[in-house]
Amino acid sequence: MTAPSRGSKSAGEFELIARYLAPLAAAEGGALGLLDDAAVFDPEAGWRQVISTDAMVEGVHFPDAEDAETVATRALGAGVSDLAAMGALPEFYTLALAFPKAWDGAQRESWMIRFTAALDARQAQLGIRLIGGDTVATPGPLWVSLTSIGRVPLGREIRRSGAVADDVIWVSGSIGDGALGLKVLSGVLTTLPHDMGQALIKRFQRPEPRIALGRHLVGLAHAAADISDGLIADLTNICAASRVSATIDIARIPLSIPAQTAVDMDSANWAVVLSGGDDYEIVFTSPSNITKQVIDVARESGTAVTAIGHVDAVETDASPLVRILGVDGREVSLGGQGYRHF
Amino acid sequence: MTAPSRGSKSAGEFELIARYLAPLAAAEGGALGLLDDAAVFDPEAGWRQVISTDAMVEGVHFPDAEDAETVATRALGAGVSDLAAMGALPEFYTLALAFPKAWDGAQRESWMIRFTAALDARQAQLGIRLIGGDTVATPGPLWVSLTSIGRVPLGREIRRSGAVADDVIWVSGSIGDGALGLKVLSGVLTTLPHDMGQALIKRFQRPEPRIALGRHLVGLAHAAADISDGLIADLTNICAASRVSATIDIARIPLSIPAQTAVDMDSANWAVVLSGGDDYEIVFTSPSNITKQVIDVARESGTAVTAIGHVDAVETDASPLVRILGVDGREVSLGGQGYRHF
Repeated sequence: MTAPSRGSKSAGEFELIARYLAPLAAAEGGALGLLDDAAVFDPEAGWRQVISTDAMVEGVHFPDAEDAETVATRALGAGVSDLAAMGALPEFYTLALAFPKAWDGAQRESWMIRFTAALDARQAQLGIRLIGGDTVATPGPLWVSLTSIGRVPLGREIRRSGAVADDVIWVSGSIGDGALGLKVLSGVLTTLPHDMGQALIKRFQRPEPRIALGRHLVGLAHAAADISDGLIADLTNICAASRVSATIDIARIPLSIPAQTAVDMDSANWAVVLSGGDDYEIVFTSPSNITKQVIDVARESGTAVTAIGHVDAVETDASPLVRILGVDGREVSLGGQGYRHF
Repeated sequence: MTAPSRGSKSAGEFELIARYLAPLAAAEGGALGLLDDAAVFDPEAGWRQVISTDAMVEGVHFPDAEDAETVATRALGAGVSDLAAMGALPEFYTLALAFPKAWDGAQRESWMIRFTAALDARQAQLGIRLIGGDTVATPGPLWVSLTSIGRVPLGREIRRSGAVADDVIWVSGSIGDGALGLKVLSGVLTTLPHDMGQALIKRFQRPEPRIALGRHLVGLAHAAADISDGLIADLTNICAASRVSATIDIARIPLSIPAQTAVDMDSANWAVVLSGGDDYEIVFTSPSNITKQVIDVARESGTAVTAIGHVDAVETDASPLVRILGVDGREVSLGGQGYRHF
């Protein structure tokens, strides 16, 4: 048993909140200046509230807490991505933040200055406002937990469970960049030209949630998920929730030039592309007779989409739920790593 | 820089969620079985949503993660307490949960069985349902972060900022038990009879948020806060938000028999009573001409309340904002520990 220090707030914590976090909430009256026990907000009639909670830990979800900008941009990007995948308009977030006890006051303040500057820029870009949260100290590594709240027209959210046989399977943007970027950042992938490595790192550090695309897909997509756990895992989640299976064509998966270069140099990087998380693109399904509409709304939302396969009626012994066809049209296997069995 | 492992979920994490957390969300359709990117809920017209986020870390907010029951009961109690203090009806919560990486699968599962059994009992008692969350691994100690969502009739929430001069200051229940209980639990306070020590420990482990009292105070209380950071700190927050000061009478602070015994044995324990957090009682102010009504609604809600002082017009040089009168009627000081200066 560890003898705990007092869990309650010190004067320093109150001051950090007032000085650095309260300005992020200033535009939102319901945040009550972060001075109250809770925040308030008034949903509008005709809308459904959508809420998601994510957690990120130093050494697990980001390599280095010192890079406060990446902690901020990744946390907000990943949090909002869950709402985007359901077709929701993100509005608010609350933030729980744990500082390492080993940090002295100056270190904490320097970190908060950089962290909140990045949050400020990021929340303006994403159209969301801080409304509440908590700051604590931890004997372990820095972590953040973010709860994102948004809204979607009543009954119109895109769930994972709506995919049906013969749907087209689509992905937004390009796949694999985030996970490959993490490999470059942590020194595991060293063979790429410098500029390509940097481009991949940027995709890891600064995921762009597909808010506009998600909203445009309301009424068109049958099912959707954001790609946070990896393309195969997240598509498998859709299949399991929808009681279908899926076939995707590896040659049709959209790759950025750096990712294409990485798989050309070493085909083992395909496993990273297919199973690595951190893309925060959207994988979704839609009826095959509205392909043109899907491409049109994607263009309107400024995000490319690519058809990568189709939904199959589930077979009784379907395992894995997602089949992958290689360049020669034969089924390939990722081994145990890429699949989860239900 | 630490080389991170993949932040995305393993099959084991998905299974823990499905097996142990999904049943806690089964009664709430909007939780979507914890299988989707986010949860949904439909607020009713005429109500305002209230939201609060709290974080708790092993070794800081609870002594020992192994005591899964205490982690569950404290986390839900503290989270809901913020809503209670605003007069809100708690409805939902999301949970972020980080397991120590050092735990093997069996240890994690054994912990989850005990943790979710305690959550199940606690959420039934408090009338709330799990609707979403995240589970991750951490190289540090176990932590949880809870976001609580409730509702209050539109425009009727009790804020910290409404106190005015001549208001009566009240507290619910008894003060100091939680902080003294933590001192017993961690072996710092050893002189109390065994049964008294156990009673205090129970108050620390199982705070009872004053939901019914809070709801009854809507329309009666001018300002309120829950006592999580300590009576003096939380009353100081009310004073600062309301631009008033306060005088409280130490002899009128309601103490349980174990707490009274602790301060009788060692008057230094007064500092624990006044400045220790973890009571999760409500401190509130109300006009002096409705004293009888306040006592009546407190009785209806099953919670005792005690008048401990009054609100003063703020003096320009008021520091501290909360004056404490000792048993002899003279002002006493807690030293730096108990006060925050604005």
